[in-house]
Amino acid sequence: MRTAEEYLAKLRGMRRNVHYRGELVDRDHPDIMPGIRVISETFKVDDPALKGLAAATSHLTGETVNRFCHIHCTTDDLLAKQKLTRLLCRRTGGCIQRCMGIDALNALSVVTKLAQDATDIDYHERFNRYLRYFQENDLVGNAAQTDVKGDRSKRPSEQADPDLYVRVVERGRDGIVVRGAKAHNTIGPYCDEIIVLPTRLMTPNDADWSVAFAVPADAEGVHQYIRATHPRPRSFLKAPVAEFGACDSLTVFDDVFVPWERVFLCGETVFAGQLAALFATYHRHSYTGCKAAVSDIVLGAAALVAEYNGVAKAPHVRDKLAELIAVGELVFAAGVAASVTAQPASSGTMVPDIIFTNVGRYHAGVNVMHEFEILIDLAGGLPATLPPEEEWANPESARFLDKYIMRNPSVSAENQHRCFRLLSDLLCSSNSGVMQVAGVHGGGSPIMERIAITSLYDFEEKKALARYLAGITS
Amino acid sequence: MRTAEEYLAKLRGMRRNVHYRGELVDRDHPDIMPGIRVISETFKVDDPALKGLAAATSHLTGETVNRFCHIHCTTDDLLAKQKLTRLLCRRTGGCIQRCMGIDALNALSVVTKLAQDATDIDYHERFNRYLRYFQENDLVGNAAQTDVKGDRSKRPSEQADPDLYVRVVERGRDGIVVRGAKAHNTIGPYCDEIIVLPTRLMTPNDADWSVAFAVPADAEGVHQYIRATHPRPRSFLKAPVAEFGACDSLTVFDDVFVPWERVFLCGETVFAGQLAALFATYHRHSYTGCKAAVSDIVLGAAALVAEYNGVAKAPHVRDKLAELIAVGELVFAAGVAASVTAQPASSGTMVPDIIFTNVGRYHAGVNVMHEFEILIDLAGGLPATLPPEEEWANPESARFLDKYIMRNPSVSAENQHRCFRLLSDLLCSSNSGVMQVAGVHGGGSPIMERIAITSLYDFEEKKALARYLAGITS
Amino acid sequence: MRTAEEYLAKLRGMRRNVHYRGELVDRDHPDIMPGIRVISETFKVDDPALKGLAAATSHLTGETVNRFCHIHCTTDDLLAKQKLTRLLCRRTGGCIQRCMGIDALNALSVVTKLAQDATDIDYHERFNRYLRYFQENDLVGNAAQTDVKGDRSKRPSEQADPDLYVRVVERGRDGIVVRGAKAHNTIGPYCDEIIVLPTRLMTPNDADWSVAFAVPADAEGVHQYIRATHPRPRSFLKAPVAEFGACDSLTVFDDVFVPWERVFLCGETVFAGQLAALFATYHRHSYTGCKAAVSDIVLGAAALVAEYNGVAKAPHVRDKLAELIAVGELVFAAGVAASVTAQPASSGTMVPDIIFTNVGRYHAGVNVMHEFEILIDLAGGLPATLPPEEEWANPESARFLDKYIMRNPSVSAENQHRCFRLLSDLLCSSNSGVMQVAGVHGGGSPIMERIAITSLYDFEEKKALARYLAGITS
Amino acid sequence: MRTAEEYLAKLRGMRRNVHYRGELVDRDHPDIMPGIRVISETFKVDDPALKGLAAATSHLTGETVNRFCHIHCTTDDLLAKQKLTRLLCRRTGGCIQRCMGIDALNALSVVTKLAQDATDIDYHERFNRYLRYFQENDLVGNAAQTDVKGDRSKRPSEQADPDLYVRVVERGRDGIVVRGAKAHNTIGPYCDEIIVLPTRLMTPNDADWSVAFAVPADAEGVHQYIRATHPRPRSFLKAPVAEFGACDSLTVFDDVFVPWERVFLCGETVFAGQLAALFATYHRHSYTGCKAAVSDIVLGAAALVAEYNGVAKAPHVRDKLAELIAVGELVFAAGVAASVTAQPASSGTMVPDIIFTNVGRYHAGVNVMHEFEILIDLAGGLPATLPPEEEWANPESARFLDKYIMRNPSVSAENQHRCFRLLSDLLCSSNSGVMQVAGVHGGGSPIMERIAITSLYDFEEKKALARYLAGITS
Repeated sequence: MRTAEEYLAKLRGMRRNVHYRGELVDRDHPDIMPGIRVISETFKVDDPALKGLAAATSHLTGETVNRFCHIHCTTDDLLAKQKLTRLLCRRTGGCIQRCMGIDALNALSVVTKLAQDATDIDYHERFNRYLRYFQENDLVGNAAQTDVKGDRSKRPSEQADPDLYVRVVERGRDGIVVRGAKAHNTIGPYCDEIIVLPTRLMTPNDADWSVAFAVPADAEGVHQYIRATHPRPRSFLKAPVAEFGACDSLTVFDDVFVPWERVFLCGETVFAGQLAALFATYHRHSYTGCKAAVSDIVLGAAALVAEYNGVAKAPHVRDKLAELIAVGELVFAAGVAASVTAQPASSGTMVPDIIFTNVGRYHAGVNVMHEFEILIDLAGGLPATLPPEEEWANPESARFLDKYIMRNPSVSAENQHRCFRLLSDLLCSSNSGVMQVAGVHGGGSPIMERIAITSLYDFEEKKALARYLAGITS
Repeated sequence: MRTAEEYLAKLRGMRRNVHYRGELVDRDHPDIMPGIRVISETFKVDDPALKGLAAATSHLTGETVNRFCHIHCTTDDLLAKQKLTRLLCRRTGGCIQRCMGIDALNALSVVTKLAQDATDIDYHERFNRYLRYFQENDLVGNAAQTDVKGDRSKRPSEQADPDLYVRVVERGRDGIVVRGAKAHNTIGPYCDEIIVLPTRLMTPNDADWSVAFAVPADAEGVHQYIRATHPRPRSFLKAPVAEFGACDSLTVFDDVFVPWERVFLCGETVFAGQLAALFATYHRHSYTGCKAAVSDIVLGAAALVAEYNGVAKAPHVRDKLAELIAVGELVFAAGVAASVTAQPASSGTMVPDIIFTNVGRYHAGVNVMHEFEILIDLAGGLPATLPPEEEWANPESARFLDKYIMRNPSVSAENQHRCFRLLSDLLCSSNSGVMQVAGVHGGGSPIMERIAITSLYDFEEKKALARYLAGITS
Repeated sequence: MRTAEEYLAKLRGMRRNVHYRGELVDRDHPDIMPGIRVISETFKVDDPALKGLAAATSHLTGETVNRFCHIHCTTDDLLAKQKLTRLLCRRTGGCIQRCMGIDALNALSVVTKLAQDATDIDYHERFNRYLRYFQENDLVGNAAQTDVKGDRSKRPSEQADPDLYVRVVERGRDGIVVRGAKAHNTIGPYCDEIIVLPTRLMTPNDADWSVAFAVPADAEGVHQYIRATHPRPRSFLKAPVAEFGACDSLTVFDDVFVPWERVFLCGETVFAGQLAALFATYHRHSYTGCKAAVSDIVLGAAALVAEYNGVAKAPHVRDKLAELIAVGELVFAAGVAASVTAQPASSGTMVPDIIFTNVGRYHAGVNVMHEFEILIDLAGGLPATLPPEEEWANPESARFLDKYIMRNPSVSAENQHRCFRLLSDLLCSSNSGVMQVAGVHGGGSPIMERIAITSLYDFEEKKALARYLAGITS
Repeated sequence: MRTAEEYLAKLRGMRRNVHYRGELVDRDHPDIMPGIRVISETFKVDDPALKGLAAATSHLTGETVNRFCHIHCTTDDLLAKQKLTRLLCRRTGGCIQRCMGIDALNALSVVTKLAQDATDIDYHERFNRYLRYFQENDLVGNAAQTDVKGDRSKRPSEQADPDLYVRVVERGRDGIVVRGAKAHNTIGPYCDEIIVLPTRLMTPNDADWSVAFAVPADAEGVHQYIRATHPRPRSFLKAPVAEFGACDSLTVFDDVFVPWERVFLCGETVFAGQLAALFATYHRHSYTGCKAAVSDIVLGAAALVAEYNGVAKAPHVRDKLAELIAVGELVFAAGVAASVTAQPASSGTMVPDIIFTNVGRYHAGVNVMHEFEILIDLAGGLPATLPPEEEWANPESARFLDKYIMRNPSVSAENQHRCFRLLSDLLCSSNSGVMQVAGVHGGGSPIMERIAITSLYDFEEKKALARYLAGITS
């Protein structure tokens, strides 16, 4: 397994294909480093607090591997991934980002087996060879799923520009050539591998768009156009919340060659939809861990500011805290229930219960804005009007600022200041908007879970119950 | 184990102490029979659909016993109780009612052990002897917990009338004499045993009110004043929904003698609060099963009427159905998570996780009215204005009524009629109001879960997380 | 203007065409009387508390008429109607019912003018002659709008059975013959006149269904099949809440002849939709009065039980009461704003602002279940388990029941009893379900208001605002 | 009346007392200019679109004055202020900011009259002289109300540091000396005058803190510590949304002298609370205008992105738009109702109805996060991951970025880009968090409106209604 240093060293050696603010930049650009620091946390497999969670035993090799490279073989694997995700997201103040790789790999392990069994193509064997490489090198994978999609009312094959979904433009003896773009690729500029998956159900006309493969993140023809969501820089009030961030890439595939060994689906339209849905399932299951962590952070901040304001025991404050607890723990409970009722696929990979998984992610998605609302409610207006940190560097100003920030007299001015600076970062930075958008849309918007739920739920069984109660027998 | 017939026969032999509409009535009064029919379902232990659920092996005797008499010894016991509850409540169109007994017994099994270990009184041994009797006779137990409480701003010992909480008025060599009243005692007039538990935390001044015991439901001095919630009678459109009902009793203890063998707590104030809280925990865990069943019923009726109205595929209908699914399955998931993370008490009894249990019940409580709202929304106005069933007995009227009830032409007029009759019973009967009130308050109102959650949650751990992110170290 | 006695006397003289529980019944049947008592309140025009509200000056004759027969000629008329509705609904514990007539008349006054101006048919003159008759005789009008509608996915002309929307089956020299049925006709069995309006937009194929007319409620060929929602009878605890009720009729038109003088639209499809929409607008405006009254009642009951339970000053109780106030007063405010921004139609009739009107009714509809939820929350479980009133007739029982219902010691047992009996009627009677269904669907379900709002709102103006802010100029 | 140029020129001549990022800065600092541009819009009184709204006739002088300097003398004045506020806030993409001055002046006009009548001090005459000066010079006023408040569980006189609420430290022949700090002073660095008002009810012990006065914004001893919320700078995609912003000041009063002519309350504790409440009322009434504008902007952006994504006619999109409309129009309707039911105070100033005003502001406050949630929902993830604008400056990158941003083919890539850039500014900038916090807390948090509502509502009248319905007569 790698260290964070080895990971960073490899990034520094990669081809420059990351575009930022109009320029090609190095992967260790200061605005990208906050994201790299997030991933670095995932390499701390020896941390005693992560014992039994951070590492796993590969079912391919029997070797110890980073859990973010592991295929779930038991319900305990699913529980462990969920817990690990919650713990790590707490450390980084939000998304741990590396979940995408493990979710993509698990989905591929299931669907490549199904596709191999249905065709005479060795997709699953290729995948397992790739997985072995991935595990042995302890790689960081990005899952590039969301196409740019063009006209939302049209299928891939119906678009004016056929490139608006990633597609195969050439099939050769050694591999394929792909073209198109994937959006919202968190981790893009600091991952090792980009794993490309279909984004939706495909009809028979959409064969060229039914493709899954993996390429190195700096492969020829890959261009990344990134936005960096980095914390507001701190001059002297250093704090973990101001160390971590993320980048999202619009990843352009400008006629990229992919050798067959790295192609995991190519034209089998029926499996494209399954792969899309299954990645969504694994990723939503990861959300039951990471979203619980975000709730923990919101809850912790809310409880802290209530204490600092001296209102921690007011009944309406307690009620609001209870609401926050209920959101986070229900989401987590759904993930637990999905884990313990998981079923093995033909590949042996465990698939979490899809209804529990989706209701968990759904509950997170429809509540995230309400959680922020509660935090705003309890924090009051100061996060929005707190003078910049530099003001405190002027002793004359600091004298007034410290005097007038005092609340609960047992809490120092500096700690009050740190608390509200945290709240300002959580509520009134560009990052806070991104957290909200990610909370609603990341891993699938609530409308996607509603569709998944109603597509898969056994309504007939429920209608039979109603007919029984009504005495309807015909 | 008993049969439903044996159960009914025993009820018929009991002393007349049930008051209804101003008169002493037999226990098989027509308005009580709907409740008796509910309990009768719990005696069908040989039903193949309940295999592995309805019966359990007594940890006291190794004999097979009805699960409603069983102490949970494993996490699987808790999962089985949850599933059994959901299945049975679906059959009866709502509350299965017998859960109270098992929840009271499990709470007593834990707390009598704690009390016995802390005192030199053989509470746990008494309880186990009582439990053996209970299991061998396959009894139906009512849990009488909620006192009438008088002035809500005062503790038991502070009330103008000391009887407003049930209390010990005399301690003798052979037993105690108790006085007071318990409210909302579902199952009262058709149970075998009344198990009395404290309703709240007690202070040292409240020793006389810190009492737990069991008496036969027709013991001398026990008077039951009941309200029967029975379905609207059907003349000819017979249906299960119109067969089941419930009674609640205001149970008066008019100086009732209880022998020591049936006294499980008497003056140990500290254990009174624990017993109250633990019964609430078990009962709220039962709610994660029964409330999921109510959601199943609402969902089934909603899906059926959408089909009958021909709008089952409309997006806004699908969205509403997804919301209903999410409520029921999240509540159930919370119960699953509470079961699999349960911990054994010193008595060996498994205690479900209290946070998961409470957030599950809480979510049910804050959503029940919204579920009814969705059902009303999808059902339209007809449940409120459907002419009485007798109208159909007149052929001349029936001709018009059948003609004008037609919707989806593939559904017969009778089935349309049956469907809307079901909806009228679910939405516009006195029973529907009772289901709503029970959905909000039964097993503890949302405010009680908020209090339980905030009392028990580890806020310090969450505030430490916020301090870590903020860089607060002192 | 009539007295309540004259109104009742006329009802007694009408032809028997009301079917109830399988029989033809008299209009003063005991189960219908609660509805008649509601309408009787509207005849108290001399009540000083209704001064300036209950009577108006006819724009046709200059005579004083009951406001429920009046055409709104000024914004003050609209405000007066809204206030009067609120006051009267408070007296009867819910819907005042007579609003339907005034709303139908006002809609007809507008659309008959438009139709007359667009055709060479004297619709508006006929209408004004009918209105004069209506005002002079101080009649009570039912608006029969909602057709039974059959297959909801098909238009009137597409139904398997063409009678599933009321239609013209014959046009003669003296009049027309109509067939079909209208549902949910509150007031049907105790109104004088049935005013029939179209229920939806009509396409050119739907000309036979584009018909509006008025018939006496006992006209030949009219059959009413009713459901009576009457309060739970009280033996001795008499109370206004137990005096009032309502009946809804499924009104069948079995080839009913209507003379031309009473036909207000016949085949003009374009005006059918306008008439349907305009009646909805007037009726939703009435809701801003009546729904505020329901909120008043819920709020009053909530505040009273909080006082009786001794928790009126608890912060969470105050918060809940504030939520109730906000619902009722926002709905009322929307009606006020709709009134003061009303515009005159070509007939001179004032039309309330359609957006304010619809958002007001919408807000009422999406909150009614939440209001009941708050009342349940504050009332606790007793409304569902309160023993029947007859129990108090037995002095031995009453001794216990009174002793154990005591709460706040300054409130007598009888008043506590009365308070919870009111709550039981409001929350756990068949009436409560009907109030909920009416609260959601009456006057148009929330989905109907969403459709009305999005159909009429000026989105282009708002998109222009967004384009301006974005700097989009092309 | 002034022009925007004259206003800016005056700002440039003021004493430097604005601290920003650790330095004393000029008032026309680039980060302050966005706020100045907002205020500049208020000087466009000749704009035909604002005819009848932007100017008013002074009741003191009969001269035409800017409406933001005017005392409301009629209900039409209140309606005009509400409309003007809505229109101007739309132009600036949010808060128009100058409302504070007019709201403070109106509150002072009422309370100085009451205080003058109750004492022998000429508060109202002083105020009118100040008002005349204010009107003649067309000044921009900041209302400094919110004290820093220290320990929230203690009153002003109980704080460890008495300066945590602004107080009088010296009373002299010529005036008073004040010390303390006011927080969240929007407009501070670019206003002419700071008008100081008490922030809460005062007890008799709090006389030194019961003070109201006005000082020039650059008076000796006044220090402003500001945070600037400015839009993300645009390189080439210029747009109004990126031109406007705001600054908030923590305003420190370091022993500031105030001449008696500018002191409007000094020690009259009973009027301090009235003044605080009345300013809140006027300010909340202003919110019914500005918040409607924010809803307009959110709605416009939502409708535009739905069109650009090609989903404007999808039912779930229409439903969401209807929800947005309902929020904004209900809030506005509450303001209309509050205006038309306003009552004159003894000074002649019109006071909007306090219940309608508060339920309007309350509805805005409890819905703002839900409005943002809908906008996020409809906008999708792109606002969070849109590459920076500079990327488009590189033609090679722009080629890909334009290709892959295409959706509805009838909308150009640039317009798609502009639309999502607007959404990114509205949803994922530091400004968006500030808008959310302001939406919840500005003008009083929902909890403050709940307190105002429950303090002032006539509960007795409502309880009497419940008693009447219940038949409770004693």
